[in-house]
Amino acid sequence: MRDNITTQRISAVRNLLNEWRVEAVYITSETNRRWLSGFTGSNGQLLITKEHALLATDFRYWEQAQQQAPAYTLFKHQRTTEDTVQFFTETGATRIGIEANHLTLQAATDLKNNNALSHLTWVPLPQTVESLRAVKNSDEIAAIQAAAAITDHTMSQVNLLARPGISEKELAWELEKVMRDAGAEATAFTLIVASGPNSALPHHRPGKRLLQAGDTIVVDMGAQLDGYKSDLTRSFYLGSEPNEQFWAVYNKVLEAQTAVIQQTRPGMTCKEIDGIARNMINAAGHEEHFGHGLGHGLGLDIHETPFLSPRSDSTILSPNMITTIEPGIYLPGWGGIRIEDLTYCTEDGLALLSHCPKVPIIPVR
Amino acid sequence: MRDNITTQRISAVRNLLNEWRVEAVYITSETNRRWLSGFTGSNGQLLITKEHALLATDFRYWEQAQQQAPAYTLFKHQRTTEDTVQFFTETGATRIGIEANHLTLQAATDLKNNNALSHLTWVPLPQTVESLRAVKNSDEIAAIQAAAAITDHTMSQVNLLARPGISEKELAWELEKVMRDAGAEATAFTLIVASGPNSALPHHRPGKRLLQAGDTIVVDMGAQLDGYKSDLTRSFYLGSEPNEQFWAVYNKVLEAQTAVIQQTRPGMTCKEIDGIARNMINAAGHEEHFGHGLGHGLGLDIHETPFLSPRSDSTILSPNMITTIEPGIYLPGWGGIRIEDLTYCTEDGLALLSHCPKVPIIPVR
Repeated sequence: MRDNITTQRISAVRNLLNEWRVEAVYITSETNRRWLSGFTGSNGQLLITKEHALLATDFRYWEQAQQQAPAYTLFKHQRTTEDTVQFFTETGATRIGIEANHLTLQAATDLKNNNALSHLTWVPLPQTVESLRAVKNSDEIAAIQAAAAITDHTMSQVNLLARPGISEKELAWELEKVMRDAGAEATAFTLIVASGPNSALPHHRPGKRLLQAGDTIVVDMGAQLDGYKSDLTRSFYLGSEPNEQFWAVYNKVLEAQTAVIQQTRPGMTCKEIDGIARNMINAAGHEEHFGHGLGHGLGLDIHETPFLSPRSDSTILSPNMITTIEPGIYLPGWGGIRIEDLTYCTEDGLALLSHCPKVPIIPVR
Repeated sequence: MRDNITTQRISAVRNLLNEWRVEAVYITSETNRRWLSGFTGSNGQLLITKEHALLATDFRYWEQAQQQAPAYTLFKHQRTTEDTVQFFTETGATRIGIEANHLTLQAATDLKNNNALSHLTWVPLPQTVESLRAVKNSDEIAAIQAAAAITDHTMSQVNLLARPGISEKELAWELEKVMRDAGAEATAFTLIVASGPNSALPHHRPGKRLLQAGDTIVVDMGAQLDGYKSDLTRSFYLGSEPNEQFWAVYNKVLEAQTAVIQQTRPGMTCKEIDGIARNMINAAGHEEHFGHGLGHGLGLDIHETPFLSPRSDSTILSPNMITTIEPGIYLPGWGGIRIEDLTYCTEDGLALLSHCPKVPIIPVR
């Protein structure tokens, strides 16, 4: 099963070689490599031509590589210059695509200056399989759904764990324990717990600030399972009676998010989708207060194609793409509200992968 | 205090500009940037000339950057092309060093192809401040020592938590909870718990294998505090009566490690230090079974200069360098033993930063 998928993905890359004007592609991105091979070791590189599919790794991973990536010919790379030369000459390909957004300048220069490889031409490719990875198969959707379920469960504990006197840091750690105990292999990213004025900072790192009654609290987190990630944000009010401003901002964000989920259809550009929320937020006078894109794709990486933003006018949303929908309004000094769900695109529109309720009130006991 | 240190480090870089044959250096490595400025945000770049020290970051971090890095002039970078052009032209420098081992090929190409910057010359530097970072000051030693103390405490719990029937994964998570509850802001790297035959794999990731009586167990972990990391390995036997082979291998590794700690002096090359352990292990017939270097420097990065290995003949150990000393013997099919301590170099030799006892027996209750 896994093997079939790998074979299909290798074929997809072979079909792209002409478009890229190369005879081979050299894959160094860890997530592109994992997606194309199934191999999860910390060190590994792929070289794919019309005829060959090589996986190079060092002695620590030879057994694991053969088990996880049977569609590839294992190249036992001892990290010597001789092995590098053999790896790149073995297939006979002379025009080789390299991943320009992953390879360092030094690594690219070393290849170019290697005298034994002077007959090769290196072709920088800004992207390789990123657009293929954007469209998920059923196994990937299931993995992300499982990670999302753990995240939903974790988020449901916020109203039990958040209380006046606990620090952002302590709350983040309590939530991480819930998530890991529920089966997450890791967090998808460092949990965000932002309270009071800190909630106005979209990427606040949990600090020593103690929660207090009357705080707005933004919790943004995701679980990782089998390499696949999830992402979820809820905003809360600590206390029973939020003031009018809280409700005004909260409801505006919720309204914008709901509109996106209802109105998005496959075939729309990512800029149009972003615009649904942005126009509503701008119309409410918050043009300056929504400083990030509406959402992003996610899978083996926490941020991947497609990106829903005002700049994404050439990316089209297609069925089986997975994206976050996360509008926010941030008022410096006061605080912020962000509401984020995970969705996948069907033939008809967006379906939810996250199911955590949106109940912002955390009563103070 | 922090500010004084930053000023000294900026001066040190300015003194190197001539040697690098540049008028400015552009710092993109996250840890080099943190070390040179104190700024911990997720996005930031430095440009240092004889006259100027600029820190560019986006709107999320303007306040934090000014607080953490008062020695720098804040450049408010909105991620536009105009801002990029202004950032690189503002100082008047025309020969600009770039970090070739950090900048991607794409980022370097974008700079080179930027028409508005065509009057600038970009000089790839394989290293910038890495060798300066190798020599720690007293604050850094204190931070690493505090991280090492948490790691010692965590390791001391292994003989309470390890038992037949617990999986590697579960044990790793129990240990991580001890470490984080003891104050670590994060683990320095994914904890290694390798049991039975898995202990023969130096970088095994904790899996579903259940520990059983008679197992050799390698636990390798480190805590992070204020960005600074620690690293510690102990090897155990689950049961009261290890067989002769366990003791033979264990004692050989311990003997080699002890010899290194006793015999190392500042002024020796890193190859010579590696050789102290390697010669002893080779002489015992294990030439094929010690497949990694003897140790590595550590600080803001978990692996940094100096590297103790057979290839490090041009690196000299100096006072106030911090390195791990971690010889190992790995027998495929049987298992492996690695013993690792954290040391810092004084005028006289190596002093220990890790103090966890070396008692390999974990009785089965």
